[in-house]
Amino acid sequence: MANSFGHLFRITTWGESHGGGVGVVVDGCPPRLALTEADIQPDLDRRRPGQSKIVTPRKESDTVQILSGTFEGKTLGTPISMWVKNEDVRSEAYAEMATKFRPSHADYTYVAKFGIRNWQGGGRTSARETIGRVAAGAIAKKILREQFGVEVLAYVKQVQRIAAQIDPESVKAKDIEANIVRCPDAAVAAKMIRLIEKMRKAGDSVGGIVEGVARGVPAGWGEPVFDRLEADLAKAMLSLPASKGFDIGSGFGGILMTGREHNDPFRARAGKVFTTTNRSGGIQGGISNGETIYFRVAFKPVATVMHEQDTVDVDFHNTTLKGRGRHDPCVLPRAVPMVEAMTALVLVDHALRQRAQCGES
Amino acid sequence: MANSFGHLFRITTWGESHGGGVGVVVDGCPPRLALTEADIQPDLDRRRPGQSKIVTPRKESDTVQILSGTFEGKTLGTPISMWVKNEDVRSEAYAEMATKFRPSHADYTYVAKFGIRNWQGGGRTSARETIGRVAAGAIAKKILREQFGVEVLAYVKQVQRIAAQIDPESVKAKDIEANIVRCPDAAVAAKMIRLIEKMRKAGDSVGGIVEGVARGVPAGWGEPVFDRLEADLAKAMLSLPASKGFDIGSGFGGILMTGREHNDPFRARAGKVFTTTNRSGGIQGGISNGETIYFRVAFKPVATVMHEQDTVDVDFHNTTLKGRGRHDPCVLPRAVPMVEAMTALVLVDHALRQRAQCGES
Amino acid sequence: MANSFGHLFRITTWGESHGGGVGVVVDGCPPRLALTEADIQPDLDRRRPGQSKIVTPRKESDTVQILSGTFEGKTLGTPISMWVKNEDVRSEAYAEMATKFRPSHADYTYVAKFGIRNWQGGGRTSARETIGRVAAGAIAKKILREQFGVEVLAYVKQVQRIAAQIDPESVKAKDIEANIVRCPDAAVAAKMIRLIEKMRKAGDSVGGIVEGVARGVPAGWGEPVFDRLEADLAKAMLSLPASKGFDIGSGFGGILMTGREHNDPFRARAGKVFTTTNRSGGIQGGISNGETIYFRVAFKPVATVMHEQDTVDVDFHNTTLKGRGRHDPCVLPRAVPMVEAMTALVLVDHALRQRAQCGES
Amino acid sequence: MANSFGHLFRITTWGESHGGGVGVVVDGCPPRLALTEADIQPDLDRRRPGQSKIVTPRKESDTVQILSGTFEGKTLGTPISMWVKNEDVRSEAYAEMATKFRPSHADYTYVAKFGIRNWQGGGRTSARETIGRVAAGAIAKKILREQFGVEVLAYVKQVQRIAAQIDPESVKAKDIEANIVRCPDAAVAAKMIRLIEKMRKAGDSVGGIVEGVARGVPAGWGEPVFDRLEADLAKAMLSLPASKGFDIGSGFGGILMTGREHNDPFRARAGKVFTTTNRSGGIQGGISNGETIYFRVAFKPVATVMHEQDTVDVDFHNTTLKGRGRHDPCVLPRAVPMVEAMTALVLVDHALRQRAQCGES
Repeated sequence: MANSFGHLFRITTWGESHGGGVGVVVDGCPPRLALTEADIQPDLDRRRPGQSKIVTPRKESDTVQILSGTFEGKTLGTPISMWVKNEDVRSEAYAEMATKFRPSHADYTYVAKFGIRNWQGGGRTSARETIGRVAAGAIAKKILREQFGVEVLAYVKQVQRIAAQIDPESVKAKDIEANIVRCPDAAVAAKMIRLIEKMRKAGDSVGGIVEGVARGVPAGWGEPVFDRLEADLAKAMLSLPASKGFDIGSGFGGILMTGREHNDPFRARAGKVFTTTNRSGGIQGGISNGETIYFRVAFKPVATVMHEQDTVDVDFHNTTLKGRGRHDPCVLPRAVPMVEAMTALVLVDHALRQRAQCGES
Repeated sequence: MANSFGHLFRITTWGESHGGGVGVVVDGCPPRLALTEADIQPDLDRRRPGQSKIVTPRKESDTVQILSGTFEGKTLGTPISMWVKNEDVRSEAYAEMATKFRPSHADYTYVAKFGIRNWQGGGRTSARETIGRVAAGAIAKKILREQFGVEVLAYVKQVQRIAAQIDPESVKAKDIEANIVRCPDAAVAAKMIRLIEKMRKAGDSVGGIVEGVARGVPAGWGEPVFDRLEADLAKAMLSLPASKGFDIGSGFGGILMTGREHNDPFRARAGKVFTTTNRSGGIQGGISNGETIYFRVAFKPVATVMHEQDTVDVDFHNTTLKGRGRHDPCVLPRAVPMVEAMTALVLVDHALRQRAQCGES
Repeated sequence: MANSFGHLFRITTWGESHGGGVGVVVDGCPPRLALTEADIQPDLDRRRPGQSKIVTPRKESDTVQILSGTFEGKTLGTPISMWVKNEDVRSEAYAEMATKFRPSHADYTYVAKFGIRNWQGGGRTSARETIGRVAAGAIAKKILREQFGVEVLAYVKQVQRIAAQIDPESVKAKDIEANIVRCPDAAVAAKMIRLIEKMRKAGDSVGGIVEGVARGVPAGWGEPVFDRLEADLAKAMLSLPASKGFDIGSGFGGILMTGREHNDPFRARAGKVFTTTNRSGGIQGGISNGETIYFRVAFKPVATVMHEQDTVDVDFHNTTLKGRGRHDPCVLPRAVPMVEAMTALVLVDHALRQRAQCGES
Repeated sequence: MANSFGHLFRITTWGESHGGGVGVVVDGCPPRLALTEADIQPDLDRRRPGQSKIVTPRKESDTVQILSGTFEGKTLGTPISMWVKNEDVRSEAYAEMATKFRPSHADYTYVAKFGIRNWQGGGRTSARETIGRVAAGAIAKKILREQFGVEVLAYVKQVQRIAAQIDPESVKAKDIEANIVRCPDAAVAAKMIRLIEKMRKAGDSVGGIVEGVARGVPAGWGEPVFDRLEADLAKAMLSLPASKGFDIGSGFGGILMTGREHNDPFRARAGKVFTTTNRSGGIQGGISNGETIYFRVAFKPVATVMHEQDTVDVDFHNTTLKGRGRHDPCVLPRAVPMVEAMTALVLVDHALRQRAQCGES
């Protein structure tokens, strides 16, 4: 079950970076939703390598095909199978990977686990696997938007030491998409882009923070104990390649406050309850409270660098390995649609769970 | 399914802070494991309120009873049902909670979700619910220790601004248990205790960071995509009451490095592969690499404080509420066994999954 | 996960025939349902040994206690934990079972699987395990009745060669409960009772058929492929102790017809679709069609008989074993509430699934 | 989750009879298994329409493609995605189905459930969906054969009133495949074929019984309570299109015996336990006992017949409908590989579960 996510809106991804392609099966999608490839492709284009000078130059169109689950442009309620063919097969670029484990990649751990690995590219651990998630997430975002009035978005908040202060309540999608690094503060974005370019030229890489936001989530989504909304979001985010941390609301910073300072006071106006601060990040006791949900995800610098590094070969002898050809100086701009997708998948699943147990809200 | 955790070693917790008690059913435990209440009680005692002057003074013995799943002191392979009776019923202390929502608690969100709540104590959202997890975690820890040679432990690393530097490779359980705050650095622990005492007297509370460690995990546990080991750990930790963040290995701090600096070089010695640094935190591509797993969990300051705070009542009118009677100035000492339990539950589940798919390792 | 059933209305049973008791945790119950022990006990009394002269004379009151999940007589939406204490501990009656495997019981297979077994009574394989199911089923029946207008019932249709012809459309609960064998045809029931009494005196046992019925199920419950309504019912029924077969609608008898004869013609009246025959048994393509659901379950004769039979001991030597003390000449009267419970559990789960994916029907 | 089956060896099927094709994702397959399309295609050919004069003449090659999960002819342990393209698109043949519901098909129930349906062919309810199951089952059969020494097979036991007596212990695959009806008794097979031919010419259809067999299953597979081996087999079989019943071992016939007659005596020889009769059908208490597993599945006569029948249209007005073009006079020959596939899927899942909880057997 390692390759499925969600309980009621359940996705199963498949595919390696080399082979017949990558894809996803979406099970549990509500019927009668208008859906064509045009709803999916834009997010795949935002995830695609080669979309700008600051991401990995791998050239693939990543064109999605819906193979099942729709009829005359509407969902049937049956599984939606989506497929993106692999195009960019350059096995020769990977020849050295057949015999050596790349440091801080999953080459070694896959062999330790399975006793076998597809050494052409990252195999299943390739960022290419996220195509299925982003495609499924596009459907989830559409359901949230059209049926629940929920808007999901994400942006780059920090690249190494360069940080932007963004207000989750007011940030706009068009400002995020206004530059290639996907940071809605244009001035900070320019600095980030310069740093990433510098890293690209140096054959090195940088990490940073993506902030995810969901606005309009009604109070009542999420489950009391294990499937708390923040727990499912944490899992979703830590399942993304290169992610190393997650915090929500006040997060790690909140520990500097006392309880008295940290609590979010409730107020009521016109029969509606709200909080005057939002250190909880929109979730209390695992359940949404109607405020904006916002959280951060830390992504490490991408492991592939154009420098010789110590490693071992498949026979467990010491050797060195140097990245060759293209590399991705910063995963963050492409991580933005991934964070959005995973957020939407968590939320739509909980929306359906809430409807199942407690009826229409 | 909100109240179950794990796929193959699966626990289901039940119970409110008031009512017949709290408990857990453990399904999937390997048979023929020696097991009695004496294996469980010590961890419950570490979780118990009233264990020291710096935690909530609520008085309960939290005595566990095994109701099923063992025979002549050994597990049968059938579900292990464990039960802790509720003793400390002081409903009058909660009278005001019947009509007002406590700020930054789950009172309001439970009503938003379910349209009903048990206003006596925290109901299902009470820290009392973690009894079941800690009891099940004690079994998981025993299996890991005896059948896989894995040691799981946790300690308080930071209380507000007071931080300790602890080496996950060498920290010892007895040093953790040597003081009431469960920080293995005695000098720092003393400072932490003073701060918490001060907070208790001030009717306020503080948060901080617990670090979790697993040593001896063989390479190969964890799943490639959604059920990455760090993803399941993140979910486990964010499902704990009052937790707001999780990071693993280099975590949020790792974003300050470049890829070249951040990568963990592989070396081999005597046919065994290891890394010379451990920024990955023992997990690469979602799968353990044989190094020590270590991660941090941020806990916010406890929401109950002995001060008047703005809130609303159940009729959605503005009012104020002041905590009365006892309060918990710092959840961290009691969070330590919770973090250990959830870590062990994640690991034993993945150990069994690895055995299922790939055979004995 | 062997001990859980259902996806959204999920039950987990625990307990052996000897030990602290047996119980069930019900997860996913809708909140605000009026619920006390008085809703559960009547079905447990119908399942109880010693209820009449034709069932096993074991004496237990089987008194249920709700330990969690309700507040002031209403469900909270949190897990409902129910517990029945074991009373009738007569280990000495089981002494011989410590060293010998009973034929056609699960003694041998439990040892083959787990390498250990609780030889006192049937352990986990005891019919006592069904207490948890029947208790949970009582809640499911209440939800179906009150929230969906669905009535679930079952009755004994055949004991060995003595068969009754009952109309699933019109059979009444009070006629089923009018006699101790739970066959709504009084004349046939009398014959059945005589046969069972004869068997009891002869130290032997008989099997037969229970028919299950659900009336008022709206069209649209059930899932297209693997979780067809009849598939989930089949699994539910074959999970009952001593069951050996399941068929639905025309069932095994339907194979004697041609397709032309077998098809159920549709007709419409006043904007409502119905079928003029019901060989489909209320389900088409895995989904309910609005007609009455009815199916049969075959139960073998109970394995414990008061006669010497060939078997092996735990050291795998040939020996013989003779049942001692009490025995159950016919499981059918007590199987009736079990079949009802499992039917209700399947239906309420699908009702919630339908609500989740397709909204309120 | 309606479209997934299995816990550890988990398949997810997708696809309608019209559209981009049908397929399956297999998750949890052990790594390093030799696997190419040549392992899959033979079973798909046995399932294929047009394979003989007694099955539906629809013309499709049903050529399978493995899109992921293998590398250099071996499984990687990652999801195996398999795809069969749709070829035979004859929408005009289905024009009448756009406005009328076929009797005893799922047309009406799909609309009742989803509010939409793909009226071209059977959509998701088409037998074409079973391609994914049969493809996945071919992998499961290979694992069982090579890694556990288990042989799975099935055959036609009865067509309407024409029944064969086959010994599950000794029946051979080559005798099953020796004729087009897949009944290993050649003389009875000839009669069956004549009856089916007659039905085909009459534009009518017949049903019957397929018997499934698993030989070499070690004692210890299966779970005590809900996931009994026979319960999972029952669900698997009742999830097949047109199936109406399941019984195992003595089954419905066993109710004519008394307990004394019905019990299977144990004997031991050379340290191995066996039973001298096998009325249990190889399973006791839900767990395999080492004897041959055998069970029967009832399939109704196919609903499509070439005769005018009463039905309603999509506006709920009374009308009639007559099947046009090709029809399938008997599903049984093609059901044989489906029964084998589902049996293998259940068994391999339980083999992995046993390994997970109890270690290598």
